[in-house]
Amino acid sequence: MKILLPDTMDLDPTLPEGWEAAVVDAREEIPAEHHDAAALVVWGASRRHLASAAQNLHDLRLVQSLSAGVDGILAAGFAPEAPIATGAGLHSATVSEHALALLLSLVRRLPEARIAQEHHEWSDELGGLQPLHPQGRVTTLLEARVLIWGFGEIGQTLAPVLKSLGAHVRGVARSAGERSGFEVIAADDVLDALPETDVLIDILPASEQSTGALGREVFEALPDHAIVLNVGRGTTIDQAALLEALEEGRIGSAGIDVTDPEPLPAEDPLWDAPRLLITPHGAGGRPVGADERITRNLGALAAGEEILHTAAR
Amino acid sequence: MKILLPDTMDLDPTLPEGWEAAVVDAREEIPAEHHDAAALVVWGASRRHLASAAQNLHDLRLVQSLSAGVDGILAAGFAPEAPIATGAGLHSATVSEHALALLLSLVRRLPEARIAQEHHEWSDELGGLQPLHPQGRVTTLLEARVLIWGFGEIGQTLAPVLKSLGAHVRGVARSAGERSGFEVIAADDVLDALPETDVLIDILPASEQSTGALGREVFEALPDHAIVLNVGRGTTIDQAALLEALEEGRIGSAGIDVTDPEPLPAEDPLWDAPRLLITPHGAGGRPVGADERITRNLGALAAGEEILHTAAR
Repeated sequence: MKILLPDTMDLDPTLPEGWEAAVVDAREEIPAEHHDAAALVVWGASRRHLASAAQNLHDLRLVQSLSAGVDGILAAGFAPEAPIATGAGLHSATVSEHALALLLSLVRRLPEARIAQEHHEWSDELGGLQPLHPQGRVTTLLEARVLIWGFGEIGQTLAPVLKSLGAHVRGVARSAGERSGFEVIAADDVLDALPETDVLIDILPASEQSTGALGREVFEALPDHAIVLNVGRGTTIDQAALLEALEEGRIGSAGIDVTDPEPLPAEDPLWDAPRLLITPHGAGGRPVGADERITRNLGALAAGEEILHTAAR
Repeated sequence: MKILLPDTMDLDPTLPEGWEAAVVDAREEIPAEHHDAAALVVWGASRRHLASAAQNLHDLRLVQSLSAGVDGILAAGFAPEAPIATGAGLHSATVSEHALALLLSLVRRLPEARIAQEHHEWSDELGGLQPLHPQGRVTTLLEARVLIWGFGEIGQTLAPVLKSLGAHVRGVARSAGERSGFEVIAADDVLDALPETDVLIDILPASEQSTGALGREVFEALPDHAIVLNVGRGTTIDQAALLEALEEGRIGSAGIDVTDPEPLPAEDPLWDAPRLLITPHGAGGRPVGADERITRNLGALAAGEEILHTAAR
């Protein structure tokens, strides 16, 4: 039995007895010599690569993605015999780390410190004796009320770190309840929660319902000092509304790692929005524990056991 | 009995039976009507204020500082009858938060993202598919080897947060051992540990021994990719050596919240050092739990019990 590994990252999974691995170019079509593969690992694959795999790998019994989102794979038309396993969880540590970096940078006013530094200015506004909670500004996560919209594996990785820094953390998901020890409110009730939110973190996946979820209504419901982050998908924010909210001072600041479209065109006015940090989709992009996940799911396949994190078809 | 509170921050401690509080100008001499005070709280006090208190408060039985460092108070010449209690611990949360902000900003390359943003540039170097541990650069705290030099309350507050983000954390203190579950190496052995250090965090207090502790020898022993932070005291770094290490690429980047002197003069070349973030002593500056600490120590004084965190005289 053969598993095809992508050339887009170094991988070295432990293979079950009788399996062999071959590395293929993730941008190109699958070579004919590998059309007998029983498993395919997907990372940084082109549409062409996926289409070729879906069409030619007739013995395929597992498509293992290393991405959390598998929209592209689902669209490629794989036969239903091949379960598609997502890379859910492989990006939780890196994406939550990036969200924390953006958030603390805004909270601790590092962009302003940078400008002062360029002017060789030791700013009394950014240092010295300060009130713990100045009016109209979040300058510490201590007692900050954080709402994480899209409370999956990434959100549940980030939440305890924020809590350990003194924040009060709640999640937003389809249905209310409790997850990983954190209160979760229903998405339908989110508007009611926003006036009591100092930090709103968007980790929503791309979907029809999530498109434009953070729009004018959301920014108007937040306090003027609120910090907004997006480390989910660019489509989940109405960018015109975000730009307006920043320009009109309806929110305090924002940090986004994703935009719509990507790359953000050079002429987009969002680049110059006040109090906005943009990073070019760099939060994840490096699966952690990929070998272990492949080893685990290939072992499950070989043993006829359940594949972890299969996508609904 | 009377306790004098400074006008530099809002305070509302719970007083023992028979005590009253008066607020005084922390920049001015103590008014004659308050020379009968038995306790004095110090925050943002001028040298003149402290000298006046040391000279005139003859019934003084407690000097409660809200700063971690009490050099200025010790130098003011208070009578030995008045124990001097430090504000140790009141700045652990805020200073460790700031250290984390500086560190994550450097790790996640936010200063570079900011420059790319100014140029309306969606940088492929900062986003997309990335190796988890690229050669010659720390881009995540996962598996990063962190050394915290000066492993007191702040360091022990920061260490578990870094650990929860996947870092391997060790402390440096006068003697080797274990503190709060973290390995501590002796300061005398620090040079041996530096080649295996990705992140060096200086939280040393000002003292004769700590002056210039981070000098050329330290920067040369660190790997070229190492990140150096200082949230301790400016005097603990040899700034000429730091500038040279950054200019010559002997360390990866640095973030400092303290300098020597403060404010850093506008003409100091450090302002323009490459890959250096400077914040103007803004890590702390806002005691957390001040009322509780004053209440606790005043209660202990009234009851004849032990005062918490008294400074050696």
